[in-house]
Amino acid sequence: MNETFTVDLNCDLGESFGAYKMGNDEAILPLVTSANIACGFHAGDPSVMKKTVRMALQQDVAIGAHPGFQDLVGFGRRDLAVSPEEAFDLTVYQMGALSGFIKAEGGRLHHVKPHGALYNMAAVNPALAEAIAEAVYKVNPEVVLYGLAGSALVQAGERLGLKTAHEVFADRTYQQDGTLTSRRLPNALVTSQLEAVRQVVRMVKEGQVLSQQGVDVPIKADTVCIHGDGAHAVEFARIIREVLTQENISLQALSL
Amino acid sequence: MNETFTVDLNCDLGESFGAYKMGNDEAILPLVTSANIACGFHAGDPSVMKKTVRMALQQDVAIGAHPGFQDLVGFGRRDLAVSPEEAFDLTVYQMGALSGFIKAEGGRLHHVKPHGALYNMAAVNPALAEAIAEAVYKVNPEVVLYGLAGSALVQAGERLGLKTAHEVFADRTYQQDGTLTSRRLPNALVTSQLEAVRQVVRMVKEGQVLSQQGVDVPIKADTVCIHGDGAHAVEFARIIREVLTQENISLQALSL
Amino acid sequence: MNETFTVDLNCDLGESFGAYKMGNDEAILPLVTSANIACGFHAGDPSVMKKTVRMALQQDVAIGAHPGFQDLVGFGRRDLAVSPEEAFDLTVYQMGALSGFIKAEGGRLHHVKPHGALYNMAAVNPALAEAIAEAVYKVNPEVVLYGLAGSALVQAGERLGLKTAHEVFADRTYQQDGTLTSRRLPNALVTSQLEAVRQVVRMVKEGQVLSQQGVDVPIKADTVCIHGDGAHAVEFARIIREVLTQENISLQALSL
Amino acid sequence: MNETFTVDLNCDLGESFGAYKMGNDEAILPLVTSANIACGFHAGDPSVMKKTVRMALQQDVAIGAHPGFQDLVGFGRRDLAVSPEEAFDLTVYQMGALSGFIKAEGGRLHHVKPHGALYNMAAVNPALAEAIAEAVYKVNPEVVLYGLAGSALVQAGERLGLKTAHEVFADRTYQQDGTLTSRRLPNALVTSQLEAVRQVVRMVKEGQVLSQQGVDVPIKADTVCIHGDGAHAVEFARIIREVLTQENISLQALSL
Repeated sequence: MNETFTVDLNCDLGESFGAYKMGNDEAILPLVTSANIACGFHAGDPSVMKKTVRMALQQDVAIGAHPGFQDLVGFGRRDLAVSPEEAFDLTVYQMGALSGFIKAEGGRLHHVKPHGALYNMAAVNPALAEAIAEAVYKVNPEVVLYGLAGSALVQAGERLGLKTAHEVFADRTYQQDGTLTSRRLPNALVTSQLEAVRQVVRMVKEGQVLSQQGVDVPIKADTVCIHGDGAHAVEFARIIREVLTQENISLQALSL
Repeated sequence: MNETFTVDLNCDLGESFGAYKMGNDEAILPLVTSANIACGFHAGDPSVMKKTVRMALQQDVAIGAHPGFQDLVGFGRRDLAVSPEEAFDLTVYQMGALSGFIKAEGGRLHHVKPHGALYNMAAVNPALAEAIAEAVYKVNPEVVLYGLAGSALVQAGERLGLKTAHEVFADRTYQQDGTLTSRRLPNALVTSQLEAVRQVVRMVKEGQVLSQQGVDVPIKADTVCIHGDGAHAVEFARIIREVLTQENISLQALSL
Repeated sequence: MNETFTVDLNCDLGESFGAYKMGNDEAILPLVTSANIACGFHAGDPSVMKKTVRMALQQDVAIGAHPGFQDLVGFGRRDLAVSPEEAFDLTVYQMGALSGFIKAEGGRLHHVKPHGALYNMAAVNPALAEAIAEAVYKVNPEVVLYGLAGSALVQAGERLGLKTAHEVFADRTYQQDGTLTSRRLPNALVTSQLEAVRQVVRMVKEGQVLSQQGVDVPIKADTVCIHGDGAHAVEFARIIREVLTQENISLQALSL
Repeated sequence: MNETFTVDLNCDLGESFGAYKMGNDEAILPLVTSANIACGFHAGDPSVMKKTVRMALQQDVAIGAHPGFQDLVGFGRRDLAVSPEEAFDLTVYQMGALSGFIKAEGGRLHHVKPHGALYNMAAVNPALAEAIAEAVYKVNPEVVLYGLAGSALVQAGERLGLKTAHEVFADRTYQQDGTLTSRRLPNALVTSQLEAVRQVVRMVKEGQVLSQQGVDVPIKADTVCIHGDGAHAVEFARIIREVLTQENISLQALSL
């Protein structure tokens, strides 16, 4: 008798803006099980949001809000010293805005995953994490909160009674304390596709990841972040799907 | 036996932005029956929206979304050549964003009233009017669509089966065809407060307004626009409430 | 003895924004003689502006400011009802901003060409045209004002004593009154590259263009607009350079 | 024979935006000797900038650029993790934009003072300080760089050969190391107007300030920051002018 394993594959989508195109949403959508859709602050605009929600519904991919800092020129990747209350407010606003399109298209909001610097700051700042989790809870207590595996964000969500998804990365290396190796350090990235996939399989099946310090670290892997841009994004998404399926790991979004 | 008359008093609120204050929301809110809350495009920001929704709920004032063009420096007052699809999208986005705060605060969206140039363009452009009405309908078919009395916007809403509110102005004069006298013309404004109130009473009770051409014009008056800024805004709101009450006109928002 | 002909080839450049890439600036720059650089309102950001100014100086291409409406999501292509004073102000601001980078890099501002909807509106609206021309004149009376050939904009510049460049299009058809055929009409575009180049040669050498009504129309051709994006942009730029050179038409920006 | 003392009084101006008014520029301008004009990123817009430059020229007040982060909703007061290169670029852009209006109005740029979070970050971050100083130097090596007295920013300017102005605050208390007491701590503010003025007189004449630790700290006071908003701003500016004049301290901007 086999144990059953399940994991979600999520991807950031809807990051185009006006005349500016980004990513390859049409190609990547059929390969993932949940989509984090930009909400017009760090990327995306109302027209892009509508189109992306529609595409996700057609592909039966779970729809998430992907709120970020109002820093379009920095793509939401630069730390901004917001107060917890400001983090609450921008999360409510962006969840609401995306929910407008979901209602108009007849769908349902499945999850919320903060973007970029907001995600990183919420992973380590408990006050910010709590504000974001509370925003999610107050707008819709049914949705899943995605955050870095083991981070302050998922902890805050769990304290409030939200469903959470611990997120892991295929192409990033880990430290002994379970955090990601900083991109400023060498060896931050797993460059071999095969190794990246194997890391995911092990995180899902064994709940362990080999850290840069050479010791195994326990990790919870509910959802894997798949990058939507880059030359090999679609190819890598195909490979990871294939291997995970061969390993009898079922691919699906967390049920609400 | 007396006939009963009812009218709604609406006001634009939540127009502050960041460090910039606008209007006198605390003073005007208790005097109106419905509030059109800016949604962050032409005015307002997430923090202002939350605070304004909260205040409106405390005062039991009906809450409306007040979507406008993304033209903060022009305060949404400059015509922008959007396509009907863009008008649809910006309406959905802004309704959704405000609804996020309403859900977080435990309230209910009551109406939608486009702002400034969007309001004026939708009054005379059937394609734009239809796009906005459809956006409102698709996000929430229960809410009331506010538009200039007799305009293309309320007509489009009625065709779709939306509840609509024909809006009249106390301090603007009317033309023989039922439109407002352009602000670029002399006599666009009713400068006497007493005359302004009398004009409203007559519109509500008799369904008539005396046009600049000297002939009466039929008009439907479901809601009266009260300005929230200006030196005499609060004073005028008090006067109009008093006179309408003396005239046995009941003040309340349209029921959903 | 041969008559000498000269024409300028201009291209819109520096239209990337933050993480968003647009156009193929590196490839197109060596093929043109003047560059219209976006100034951060409809496209471009400070980092893109610096990089683009630097590249243009390296290639010895004349640098122009390309001011547009503050409508990033619409890429400055949507008509916005600005007052002439607002048009003056946004032109001064954007000329100044680009000039900052030109000074920092040791170059010189050569021209100003309004972008998109601002260009089109200024071509037919004398008050707007005059405001823009005056802004250019007041910031720097030495620079060349680019506008649609024969339009209100170049006329306004000439009245003020500015050098002007009448701009023609290779790939657009013309009407009997010298205006461009609206893009909403069929036959707005010259789809054959050869025909497009021939149209330019004739405009430069004979000062005539065959209109859609079948009659020749006089036209002044100081500068030709080369599109920087699209699949065939670079190829077409190469072809037009080659043919113009064969025709003994010298390619260079207007001297200051 | 008396020693002569001189100090500059500077104030942030031009912080209105579109329909939003901020500060009392008309009243404060005649009371200061130099004006830091917002450049459209954290506050200000092209129309406000033109009007403010014009007013400053009429009052013969030295004009400075006041660049800040592109964070209008946060009024440029929130730390943003920009790279030194981004700080360089945004300084060049905003200096340039303001210089456009100064050229159009026939004036001259006198100084640059970073705003809010950019000012505070540049006071303690040498890489950021150097980038800003270099931007100022490259756009215009004649202008004066204003920064917190003794900070990394003025040091960076001095290393490059820029004229600098060490800025002091009348209404803020100082620490033993010469830094300002954080606003998050009690006793950050000097609440007595008389005491505030006395602190300035002493800083100018003796080059000393009494720190919160009870010991004197050497400080250079080239320019005093006068706040332009708040109920007592104008009153305080009048008082400080009067007292400084009585103390034979001459009020004027640093000569270029």
